[in-house]
Amino acid sequence: MELKQLIGRIEPLDERAMSAAQHRQNTLTKPPGSLGRLETLSIQLAGMRGQERPKFKHKAVIVMAADHGVTAEGVSAYPAEVTPQMVQNFLHGGAAINALARTAGARVVVVDMGVAAELPPHAGLISRKIGLGTANIARSPAMSQEQALQSVLAGAEVVLDESRKGLDVVALGDMGIGNTTPSAAVACAILGTAPEAIVGRGTGVDEAGLLRKRRVVQQALDVNRPNPHDGLDVLAKVGGFEIGGLVGVIIAAAGRRIPVVLDGFITTAAALIAVQLAPGVRPYLIASHCSEEEGHGRMLAHLKVQPLFNYGLRLGEGSGAALALPVIEAAARVLDEMATFAEAGVSGQ
Amino acid sequence: MELKQLIGRIEPLDERAMSAAQHRQNTLTKPPGSLGRLETLSIQLAGMRGQERPKFKHKAVIVMAADHGVTAEGVSAYPAEVTPQMVQNFLHGGAAINALARTAGARVVVVDMGVAAELPPHAGLISRKIGLGTANIARSPAMSQEQALQSVLAGAEVVLDESRKGLDVVALGDMGIGNTTPSAAVACAILGTAPEAIVGRGTGVDEAGLLRKRRVVQQALDVNRPNPHDGLDVLAKVGGFEIGGLVGVIIAAAGRRIPVVLDGFITTAAALIAVQLAPGVRPYLIASHCSEEEGHGRMLAHLKVQPLFNYGLRLGEGSGAALALPVIEAAARVLDEMATFAEAGVSGQ
Repeated sequence: MELKQLIGRIEPLDERAMSAAQHRQNTLTKPPGSLGRLETLSIQLAGMRGQERPKFKHKAVIVMAADHGVTAEGVSAYPAEVTPQMVQNFLHGGAAINALARTAGARVVVVDMGVAAELPPHAGLISRKIGLGTANIARSPAMSQEQALQSVLAGAEVVLDESRKGLDVVALGDMGIGNTTPSAAVACAILGTAPEAIVGRGTGVDEAGLLRKRRVVQQALDVNRPNPHDGLDVLAKVGGFEIGGLVGVIIAAAGRRIPVVLDGFITTAAALIAVQLAPGVRPYLIASHCSEEEGHGRMLAHLKVQPLFNYGLRLGEGSGAALALPVIEAAARVLDEMATFAEAGVSGQ
Repeated sequence: MELKQLIGRIEPLDERAMSAAQHRQNTLTKPPGSLGRLETLSIQLAGMRGQERPKFKHKAVIVMAADHGVTAEGVSAYPAEVTPQMVQNFLHGGAAINALARTAGARVVVVDMGVAAELPPHAGLISRKIGLGTANIARSPAMSQEQALQSVLAGAEVVLDESRKGLDVVALGDMGIGNTTPSAAVACAILGTAPEAIVGRGTGVDEAGLLRKRRVVQQALDVNRPNPHDGLDVLAKVGGFEIGGLVGVIIAAAGRRIPVVLDGFITTAAALIAVQLAPGVRPYLIASHCSEEEGHGRMLAHLKVQPLFNYGLRLGEGSGAALALPVIEAAARVLDEMATFAEAGVSGQ
């Protein structure tokens, strides 16, 4: 499998399906447009799936996990050992994403993209380990250019495997202690902004930690000089293995006409790289929420996507993306299941 | 059953359950507070239900329907015959609320509170008809004081019947061509504001219609002079039968510790009356969305409730309230189902 092939498969939204969906919305038993965002979302979904009345039966949250050498700089409130511990928690169904995915009727797919520990085998764990965590981006590139490409292709393979089991929509999730720092560096590189505009407190560092984090991001940019016009270069120099995996998920999903639901800061950083590599993925992106993390709003604006809600989330794992799945299903079910004025014998305007 | 008894049953939120829920949230495998609004909502839900870990298995959308004499003033874009037609649509499962309730795993309870037509009997239709539509509020009171009380008690009975079948949360819905006009009059009366600050385009009147609607609301207030300190007087003079039914639903649900999810303009007008009659219901209210209808935001602010999302909805039927049910369930399931740091063997901060 080559990246070029994956990108070449991405097609624009299906205008014919969108027109048919729009026409159908206008015949359903409600004032035209009265379901607001649900109606526009349903039409976008029709365009993504290439169907007038798409159904969302098979849903998955793909949670990609990896470790980050930059934790050596003291950028996280939690020790790096929490990454493998949380992977176990995902596998045992005890994390927030498990409860949220159950509510949404979605399966959780856990992928080890580069956790810095050998994880015991588990039927639910997909191992695509590129390395035992990245190098410290404050001092050197996170990974080699080969590893960057490898991580993207590994993520793509996960989606292709999952799509064979049935996959109508994919929610993105991440786990990796310290991963808001590389994500911020990715955003600064691609948006061309200073760390102050992007870097926030992650899952909860204090004021001193915030200043340190900003300094570390600036240092990562200064040391590595990522090329903003080359997504793989940005990924290799200041990214992470789970970020690369998520880039692959986005590109492969778009190529299979599968809507991609963004979560917070980390998955949105992955989307910035994916759009740089393959601008055609953009219309397949759905923003779930705007997180508390500073800069997330700027990143979403750059992607020209509007979040569905703002609940002050700052967890990651795919928590916000999972919460958006029922909204997506609701939009599609309104389009598919409602009666028309003619069918119901209701007088129109 | 007396209104006084119903009101007397309403207790404050259970502080002990809320403390226990808050404590539990802080031990779950996530940074404290990182699920934002979901966490605060889960604690509120614990207080309403009086349980540390409430479950939301039994969900219902109660849609109350009635007609309005004020349609004679040309305030709606749809003819009044649409009310009984849409009731049939609800019963046959073809309306937006049916699709949305199915997505949320909620049952739809359809109540005829005063549709201006004799509806054919249907197993799914609850008949609590107070009259064949209200009188024209631009010329006289909508109903008698007795009918106002009767409509509230009828709504309360519906909730008590439903709670015997199992009811952990109730979403409010309405159907009634012309009912944004009485709802606006109710809001103006209770908030003490002019129609310009409250009256919008409903499901879709034009500019001339908007001005007419504002004039009609002002006329209804001038002709009837509702007493803002007497909710039943406001209901009788400028309300509607479905609005009265919804007031009863709110009061009886709060008295049974059942969270009440508001929908748009009409259900929020009912909440204004309910809070006037029984201030203790306020903490049992959850605002789902802020609708496109002007003044809805003002009404929500008066109730001191924060909507969960804003999707530009202007349909009614309980559409926004149904969309909030998965968020409520998600909040509760996070609290109930997540593992603690100790259980999962995850290192804390």
